[in-house]
Amino acid sequence: MRVEYDLLGAKEVPAEVYWGVHTARAVENFPVTGTPIGRFSHLVRGLAFVKEAAALANHELGFLDDTRLEAIVRACREIRSGAFHDQFVVDVIQGGAGTSTNMNANEVIANRALELLGHRKGDYARLHPNDHVNLSQSTNDAYPTAVNVALIEAIDGLSASMEVLQASFERKAREFNGMLKVGRTQLQDAVPMTLGQEFRTFAVMLGEDKARLLESTKLLHEINLGATAIGTGLNAPAGYAARACAYLSRLTGRPLVTASDLIEATQDPGAFVHLSGVLKRVAVKLSKMCNDLRLLSSGPRAGIGEINLPAVQAGSSIMPGKVNPVIPEMVNQVAFAVIGNDMTITMAAEAGQLQLNAFEPIIVRSLSESISHLNAACRLLAERCVDGISANPEIMARRVEESIGLATALNPLIGYYAATRVAQDALATGRTVPQVVLEQGHLTAVQLEQALKPEHLANLPPESLAAEA
Amino acid sequence: MRVEYDLLGAKEVPAEVYWGVHTARAVENFPVTGTPIGRFSHLVRGLAFVKEAAALANHELGFLDDTRLEAIVRACREIRSGAFHDQFVVDVIQGGAGTSTNMNANEVIANRALELLGHRKGDYARLHPNDHVNLSQSTNDAYPTAVNVALIEAIDGLSASMEVLQASFERKAREFNGMLKVGRTQLQDAVPMTLGQEFRTFAVMLGEDKARLLESTKLLHEINLGATAIGTGLNAPAGYAARACAYLSRLTGRPLVTASDLIEATQDPGAFVHLSGVLKRVAVKLSKMCNDLRLLSSGPRAGIGEINLPAVQAGSSIMPGKVNPVIPEMVNQVAFAVIGNDMTITMAAEAGQLQLNAFEPIIVRSLSESISHLNAACRLLAERCVDGISANPEIMARRVEESIGLATALNPLIGYYAATRVAQDALATGRTVPQVVLEQGHLTAVQLEQALKPEHLANLPPESLAAEA
Amino acid sequence: MRVEYDLLGAKEVPAEVYWGVHTARAVENFPVTGTPIGRFSHLVRGLAFVKEAAALANHELGFLDDTRLEAIVRACREIRSGAFHDQFVVDVIQGGAGTSTNMNANEVIANRALELLGHRKGDYARLHPNDHVNLSQSTNDAYPTAVNVALIEAIDGLSASMEVLQASFERKAREFNGMLKVGRTQLQDAVPMTLGQEFRTFAVMLGEDKARLLESTKLLHEINLGATAIGTGLNAPAGYAARACAYLSRLTGRPLVTASDLIEATQDPGAFVHLSGVLKRVAVKLSKMCNDLRLLSSGPRAGIGEINLPAVQAGSSIMPGKVNPVIPEMVNQVAFAVIGNDMTITMAAEAGQLQLNAFEPIIVRSLSESISHLNAACRLLAERCVDGISANPEIMARRVEESIGLATALNPLIGYYAATRVAQDALATGRTVPQVVLEQGHLTAVQLEQALKPEHLANLPPESLAAEA
Amino acid sequence: MRVEYDLLGAKEVPAEVYWGVHTARAVENFPVTGTPIGRFSHLVRGLAFVKEAAALANHELGFLDDTRLEAIVRACREIRSGAFHDQFVVDVIQGGAGTSTNMNANEVIANRALELLGHRKGDYARLHPNDHVNLSQSTNDAYPTAVNVALIEAIDGLSASMEVLQASFERKAREFNGMLKVGRTQLQDAVPMTLGQEFRTFAVMLGEDKARLLESTKLLHEINLGATAIGTGLNAPAGYAARACAYLSRLTGRPLVTASDLIEATQDPGAFVHLSGVLKRVAVKLSKMCNDLRLLSSGPRAGIGEINLPAVQAGSSIMPGKVNPVIPEMVNQVAFAVIGNDMTITMAAEAGQLQLNAFEPIIVRSLSESISHLNAACRLLAERCVDGISANPEIMARRVEESIGLATALNPLIGYYAATRVAQDALATGRTVPQVVLEQGHLTAVQLEQALKPEHLANLPPESLAAEA
Repeated sequence: MRVEYDLLGAKEVPAEVYWGVHTARAVENFPVTGTPIGRFSHLVRGLAFVKEAAALANHELGFLDDTRLEAIVRACREIRSGAFHDQFVVDVIQGGAGTSTNMNANEVIANRALELLGHRKGDYARLHPNDHVNLSQSTNDAYPTAVNVALIEAIDGLSASMEVLQASFERKAREFNGMLKVGRTQLQDAVPMTLGQEFRTFAVMLGEDKARLLESTKLLHEINLGATAIGTGLNAPAGYAARACAYLSRLTGRPLVTASDLIEATQDPGAFVHLSGVLKRVAVKLSKMCNDLRLLSSGPRAGIGEINLPAVQAGSSIMPGKVNPVIPEMVNQVAFAVIGNDMTITMAAEAGQLQLNAFEPIIVRSLSESISHLNAACRLLAERCVDGISANPEIMARRVEESIGLATALNPLIGYYAATRVAQDALATGRTVPQVVLEQGHLTAVQLEQALKPEHLANLPPESLAAEA
Repeated sequence: MRVEYDLLGAKEVPAEVYWGVHTARAVENFPVTGTPIGRFSHLVRGLAFVKEAAALANHELGFLDDTRLEAIVRACREIRSGAFHDQFVVDVIQGGAGTSTNMNANEVIANRALELLGHRKGDYARLHPNDHVNLSQSTNDAYPTAVNVALIEAIDGLSASMEVLQASFERKAREFNGMLKVGRTQLQDAVPMTLGQEFRTFAVMLGEDKARLLESTKLLHEINLGATAIGTGLNAPAGYAARACAYLSRLTGRPLVTASDLIEATQDPGAFVHLSGVLKRVAVKLSKMCNDLRLLSSGPRAGIGEINLPAVQAGSSIMPGKVNPVIPEMVNQVAFAVIGNDMTITMAAEAGQLQLNAFEPIIVRSLSESISHLNAACRLLAERCVDGISANPEIMARRVEESIGLATALNPLIGYYAATRVAQDALATGRTVPQVVLEQGHLTAVQLEQALKPEHLANLPPESLAAEA
Repeated sequence: MRVEYDLLGAKEVPAEVYWGVHTARAVENFPVTGTPIGRFSHLVRGLAFVKEAAALANHELGFLDDTRLEAIVRACREIRSGAFHDQFVVDVIQGGAGTSTNMNANEVIANRALELLGHRKGDYARLHPNDHVNLSQSTNDAYPTAVNVALIEAIDGLSASMEVLQASFERKAREFNGMLKVGRTQLQDAVPMTLGQEFRTFAVMLGEDKARLLESTKLLHEINLGATAIGTGLNAPAGYAARACAYLSRLTGRPLVTASDLIEATQDPGAFVHLSGVLKRVAVKLSKMCNDLRLLSSGPRAGIGEINLPAVQAGSSIMPGKVNPVIPEMVNQVAFAVIGNDMTITMAAEAGQLQLNAFEPIIVRSLSESISHLNAACRLLAERCVDGISANPEIMARRVEESIGLATALNPLIGYYAATRVAQDALATGRTVPQVVLEQGHLTAVQLEQALKPEHLANLPPESLAAEA
Repeated sequence: MRVEYDLLGAKEVPAEVYWGVHTARAVENFPVTGTPIGRFSHLVRGLAFVKEAAALANHELGFLDDTRLEAIVRACREIRSGAFHDQFVVDVIQGGAGTSTNMNANEVIANRALELLGHRKGDYARLHPNDHVNLSQSTNDAYPTAVNVALIEAIDGLSASMEVLQASFERKAREFNGMLKVGRTQLQDAVPMTLGQEFRTFAVMLGEDKARLLESTKLLHEINLGATAIGTGLNAPAGYAARACAYLSRLTGRPLVTASDLIEATQDPGAFVHLSGVLKRVAVKLSKMCNDLRLLSSGPRAGIGEINLPAVQAGSSIMPGKVNPVIPEMVNQVAFAVIGNDMTITMAAEAGQLQLNAFEPIIVRSLSESISHLNAACRLLAERCVDGISANPEIMARRVEESIGLATALNPLIGYYAATRVAQDALATGRTVPQVVLEQGHLTAVQLEQALKPEHLANLPPESLAAEA
């Protein structure tokens, strides 16, 4: 054990660990979830990026010497390359507005830097967590900046998985292009479309959501590094904010900018609320898609049964041969969790007071989990479900023939009320709409055939249907 | 116009109105929703009950003379009988923790009492909104007590409508008792049951929910009248709380009790949060039932189509003959609104500070709307939908025969894995489970018939099926 | 009474009303909230815009004759100018995916057009709600397009009110520019800032939110008119979608575009979810601002008391002289309602199935109320609260002198740990930080004065402080 | 590696693991959160309880032989005693309605039982996960029953921690009994009370919440074991449900009962929704308490500063000497997470369809986390915060003297309007209420002293104040 000191006095920490007294107290104070911040690797990397950028700016401005700079930079780069993540041990739910996360980083970097310089851990007179690693910073600017960097990286991953899923839906849309089926509104048979159109819709939806996600990510490129405690920049030297931002942009390869009003930026979690709203939007859509997939594949014999999801595991411990839509069901649940997280984030954002939102740790936890779970969900949905979907075109075709919705196509020819009577007669007598139309003499067979051509009904270029049939 | 005075000075109010200067300022301060509190008649009645009970207690204790008592009591009774609701004009979303609602009541009662005594409105030296109508009270006890009384009454109505719906489902359960159908889990065909069992479930669910609702209503019978401003009872004479509670119990016919800790009761909206949680539970279940009704009635030709909802209006402006499940859809939306209201109530409850929750008006608005909308939804669902549902027993019977889920009944006879192979063969070849079983020689025809008897499959007494068939 | 006919047969409607059989049935089916759609005047106007644009496109394409066109156009313009809103009588919570709202519009326009043409109401053989007013449309494209137009207009109003509030905060920021005060993080005294900076933050926040709101409004400019029932455009003539969009753009003066994928656009309420997310963001910030205003004005003697909110009504029915922050409290409650509405919208959006979201009516209700209530809240907050706020500069200045947070400014001079000891000593002994620093000899008086200069502490140009002082 | 077989064919699993082919596929299908179900030890224990009870019932009814029974029972008891939790490897977010959790248990128990019998793992012909461990069960009854048992145990822990916190508040209430202070409503100074009363309120609130929590736990004692797939009990022998329930009651020591309608019980997650609603209520109150603690301890010099929270870690990386309310802040965040979980649970419950809710795994995850986090939060709040709170009685006493709220006590003596003028004069001139009253001659000094006696103001027995002073 080694002894460290803080406001509260002396405290022993294990000799071999890189974290110090602040982290030790935080670990005792917050044994809540059992999940340490080190599990959020994007966040750990984000902290290392920020500490390196700050050190470079401090050095350039003459506040940090070469030796310390080099040691800090090396420590940060080791962390970014994946090392020392197990030293980030504070719980993801923590009081203190992120101070414990920031101090955990300061201490790990300081002790690793001391080690690199040949000193023993805890020898803070030589390189200090606060006076050197945290120099010109407060938790209140370093932490949210690290979070922004972490989220930008995490969203890259989610965005890529959304593209994988989008591409999967697009492939299926092409595969199912020529298959006419009954479209449904309000769960009631409506007018015809193709299964290809139905699947293309999912691809388009994902594309829209990805566009919104990238828009919201832009807001994260505005950082408040240099704000220090409350945005007035107290203790940050002149020119520091601009230089730190420039270094951080260079290190991360992202076009970061310093917020124009640092006091506002320091207390406003608006970008997080916004991002969460967009993630919720993504979740809502994914859930809707999975609801549709489950509905269309219901059966196999007493349901809608237009498509077949690939079997990925036995469905039941009691019902032999049952195969369930387990992948879409998993995605639904991820969506529900994301929507719950949005609620949590909303409450945390609203609870912010005066010059700081003290509840960013739960915001960070919730966003990190939402992004990571959506990422997994999109990829699994593509690879373990959508890629393997097959269709039952005969079932779909037969239902189009039987469908009452064909009466809609007669409106322009015979008017809404005559068409209504055709529909009612067909329904009452169990016949098809064409049968009734011909019997009642509303149209000739030729007119009828023209009105009910698939390419007309589904509004497709005729060649697209032909090509696939 | 007449002139009245308050903390801010003189203000004109229309000569004919019963409300006074406080209400006048509140109307100017809160033009938010356009919905006045007078629209919540249960709340208006609740206020009148409380003011009468307080007056009676004050009179008994010697703090209010006979003349004023009688006038106040008469005014309160007129209001309870439906009069003067249009004089409750403050917006349902208002700041001030309900003070404006309470003062609106104080002013209307005072002015009506003055009128009954032959004085002109505004002649408060004779009978004063604060010194007489509000005597021994604060908004902080009179208002929540009135709210409790209002909610108890409103829940009576909801409870009655839930019973109407429950009875409707029960009637259908009896009507559909003998109809065998495929049960479904995860939207996949599972094992057989009867449509009667399916509908009985809805009735049982409603019964459970009603029991929970009545439990939560019990919490509302605990009132804080006598707490005055913060629960210490400052300015309420000794014995007042008990007497006021006794009078209020007698007037309302409800077994009300004074909370054992008035300071706690004055700041704790726990009973409202609890009630809202139960209303959310009711909403969740109603929404689930309506989802099921919409699913089971999907079609008419390309859906599950096991039941038919009564047509209550034409479904589409473009698709002739289309009939949509508009009543269940309405109920779904009411459920979503109730769930949203629960969120609003949660936030308002959490935001309470120190000795009072300042946000009770939005809690009251949200609870009132949730109860009233659920009430309408239950009754409309019963009368305009469930009562008129018919079934398609042939479709259901045919699907049971075709169902792969029959293989489950073979587990005890041939084991899970042999049954799995039967199920797979049936599915692959398009045959029925009995066909495959017999071909593969797993069971004799007699054994099979025994295993697949409807009463065995649905676990019903044989006579119950026979009776209905 | 007159008799009209539909799918369900004949039905009497009052002779004088402009609505017809569909509306009559919907009124009976949905007596839920008591609030008719006519209360949402933006929606009524939106419907009139769409019906006129559709008629013009149909006429240009040769599907509607001059006489009917002219009558329909005149009826629509009358409605837009404010007439006939009382004829939009269907409840805002309704099943049917908006069909009843659309049919209410079709019927009112048809009957007013008939009247203008000198025919009697209900004489639909001459001009028909479905065949002429709804020509080339379905509810599923006409209704969401009308909603988009309505929301765009409504957001104009909200945006203007946000500007009013932003300007009010900016004026106060200038007024309070020179007033040094203690900044607070986590409700604990932090480092100094000015009250001007604090109020400017609110203005900046509103500006950010307004920018986000306008971004989300852009999404609403994408419409699906021409999609008809499910997006395939069945029954809409070639060229109709483009022409209808062009006419609608011209009539509304908005740069509307037709969605590139109409099937997707018809089932995807993504833009509504997105808008609601942004409204929630606005609500969260407004609530946070109001929390701060209430906190800073707490007192008058036992609270923070740095600012005074204008008294707009007496605060208590029992506590004389009490003045409460009723306007911010109202805004908090509006925020809670908006957040609840977002939950409702999320659930409704997630519940959409296949080719349509059946739950748009509750989405429309919730968005309309959120926008309208936020609009009122912003304007009332500006005019009845922020405009009249005054400050207590002596209190603020004295607390800065006493503040422990001054120790932070010593970090760069004496290091974090020495500064910590100074802070602890000051706190333990009841002295000020400068007293302790001088006593302990860390700095000379001159150094100290330099370090604690207001312009340094609050990071302001010295002249800005001087100018205001 | 060993090879196992299922519906999808052969699959290798590591030779040493106790789980089998179903679990292996589930692990591949659901790599979502990284948290395995084995982390929820209550759930693992619950599963072991249920499997043992089912085996005992099957044995008693003659469906399971002595050898297999003994092996299964031993395996279950080992698991309950803490062994093999690392073999429960399926992700907590999983599709399949809990089938993978149930099969994970079946496989681990089967393989451990085989091992105990001297057979090799995977030799299922001798003892089969489905045919023996899962005998007479479906996931749809075994899983929710295990969840109920798990939740009952988990709530025991939470309840105990709530008692610890309640006792802590009670101790403080006694300690602070005699300390008069200003009560506050709407953040404005109201009338006096004691700090003891303020802290006692927190204790009472917790007591109320604990009572509600225990009520909701009662609902969990109703189980659906014996329902099998959809509640009809198919494949469960006669008498099984009653016997299994009796054994489970005996093993767990809990008075469990079989639900009266098993079809309803199998599809209705109402008890989970209800429990979540109560957990939300607990969260809302804890958050409110922590908001109050943070507010009352704000300062140290520019805040309300009536109480001091114990310092448990340094507050800031930049501000020396700053101590923050990190424990209450942690509790606030736990509350926000619980409220978010309630939203997730609500959505999952609403999404259930027909005979089963497929989304119980996310409900179980969310409830488990909410209970566990609240448990930790209550205990940490007691031990690391409330136990160490101290008060500043001089500050509180001085503010009572200065308080305008004293005017309230004059109402009964001089009337509301005269008291209002006293309050206004005091505020305008900076004097105290007693000073103004005496100057204006409203009361004599003796009358005034009587009216402002602390025991009168705070409505306490005089001896209680004296005893503490």
